[in-house]
Amino acid sequence: MSALEQARQAAIAAARDARVAYRGGRVSPTAGIAPGLTQANLIALPREWAYDFLLYAQRNPKACPILDVSDAGQPSTLLAEGADLRTDLPLYRIWRDGKLVEEVSDATQAWAEHDDMVAFLIGCSFTFETALQEAGIEVRHIADGRNVPMYRTNRACRPAGRLHGEMVVSMRPIPAAQVAQASAISGRYPSVHGAPVHIGEPALLGIDDLSRPDFGEAVRIEPGEIPVFWACGVTPQAAVMASGVPFAITHSPGHMFITDVPDSTYHV
Amino acid sequence: MSALEQARQAAIAAARDARVAYRGGRVSPTAGIAPGLTQANLIALPREWAYDFLLYAQRNPKACPILDVSDAGQPSTLLAEGADLRTDLPLYRIWRDGKLVEEVSDATQAWAEHDDMVAFLIGCSFTFETALQEAGIEVRHIADGRNVPMYRTNRACRPAGRLHGEMVVSMRPIPAAQVAQASAISGRYPSVHGAPVHIGEPALLGIDDLSRPDFGEAVRIEPGEIPVFWACGVTPQAAVMASGVPFAITHSPGHMFITDVPDSTYHV
Repeated sequence: MSALEQARQAAIAAARDARVAYRGGRVSPTAGIAPGLTQANLIALPREWAYDFLLYAQRNPKACPILDVSDAGQPSTLLAEGADLRTDLPLYRIWRDGKLVEEVSDATQAWAEHDDMVAFLIGCSFTFETALQEAGIEVRHIADGRNVPMYRTNRACRPAGRLHGEMVVSMRPIPAAQVAQASAISGRYPSVHGAPVHIGEPALLGIDDLSRPDFGEAVRIEPGEIPVFWACGVTPQAAVMASGVPFAITHSPGHMFITDVPDSTYHV
Repeated sequence: MSALEQARQAAIAAARDARVAYRGGRVSPTAGIAPGLTQANLIALPREWAYDFLLYAQRNPKACPILDVSDAGQPSTLLAEGADLRTDLPLYRIWRDGKLVEEVSDATQAWAEHDDMVAFLIGCSFTFETALQEAGIEVRHIADGRNVPMYRTNRACRPAGRLHGEMVVSMRPIPAAQVAQASAISGRYPSVHGAPVHIGEPALLGIDDLSRPDFGEAVRIEPGEIPVFWACGVTPQAAVMASGVPFAITHSPGHMFITDVPDSTYHV
């Protein structure tokens, strides 16, 4: 076996180990886990809501780039053979009538309430973090062992059917001299949010206080660093809230689905 | 008005003039028309088939990259203000039970058979042809004033619901020394088919005779040129045929919808 193939097998083994641990009940944010493999946001909806959501995603591709959609009633995905989407994420959120009612580490029971759940896996900016690090750009929340900070914004998404809501963004502080490079590198991954949507000036996004994120955890911002904002796959959860969706299961922010797909697959 | 803004306005005026001419009954392939503005493939289906199709497109993004989806019953698009998708393409195909039954220059009557038609606009490789030409790569079918040649292949698309079918490709002969550059340039436009799916060796795609395309017109291939194949937005029509879709309206191959959107919008 070549060294390259060995490295690939080791990465996939790490992804599997992580999924097995989450299936067994371990709960922790996934940033930095199984580096080099793509992580994904999850939203699962009854089939009756699937078209509206797929259209919402198509109309808001920066925030909701779809990586895979399951067949109705099948909690599986091409992105990780043998994985069970009901159990293999570390933490889930259960939503009723647009309200977060519960966080659980196993969504099997909630998933069984409908026999036609459709699971959407959505690109995650964690995917280009390895590329940022390889270019010598520190990813603060990984360096500090925290969850990435995420914020609701004043930017409306384009509605689709019964769905509407605002864009959610993730934020990474980047030294001013590296912002352009971070933009260029992430821009080469358009299907996992791509280039930043906003650089500096958080108030223009309606973000008053970076130290109080709406999801995840705040991170240090050092002098000379600029807050850089990427569209975030938590945006569907904002739509669930704003639109009063009757029933949805999502991942808990920062607690992603780890796939077997190399990040490089989404590099253009 | 700046020179740049003047050029932009002139391009949009050319697109509008072309749409008005097609609305008035003019029929001709659109390759080379309104250069610098994106052209799109069309398929319109009753709402009852829209989810299956949107999922088919999501699962086969190389062949079916979605640029816009209309609301049910609305033959309009954000990609060209004031355009009417029922009349503003030069030539349409009407499909019944998977069979092509008619070609018309005005689809208003067929469109009215269902009050909930959903129109899908799909990226077209014509979008990166201006970029190829600017790089000094001849686009043969434009140079020779012909429609682009398109071929059915032996590559199955990933099915979705009731839809299945093979991938259709367009072909451009490229001098061997420019093939890599043509790949790189088109690869920067992932939402309009992106990089080639196959370079040389047509037989491996199941194409026996390049001089007999399934759609469009054959083009000259000079000594030292390699046939380069890109995924093609006629792929949905192959799915309509293979799946026996009860009713669909599409553009006629090579007779695209000309938008007001600059090609550069889809450049990453």
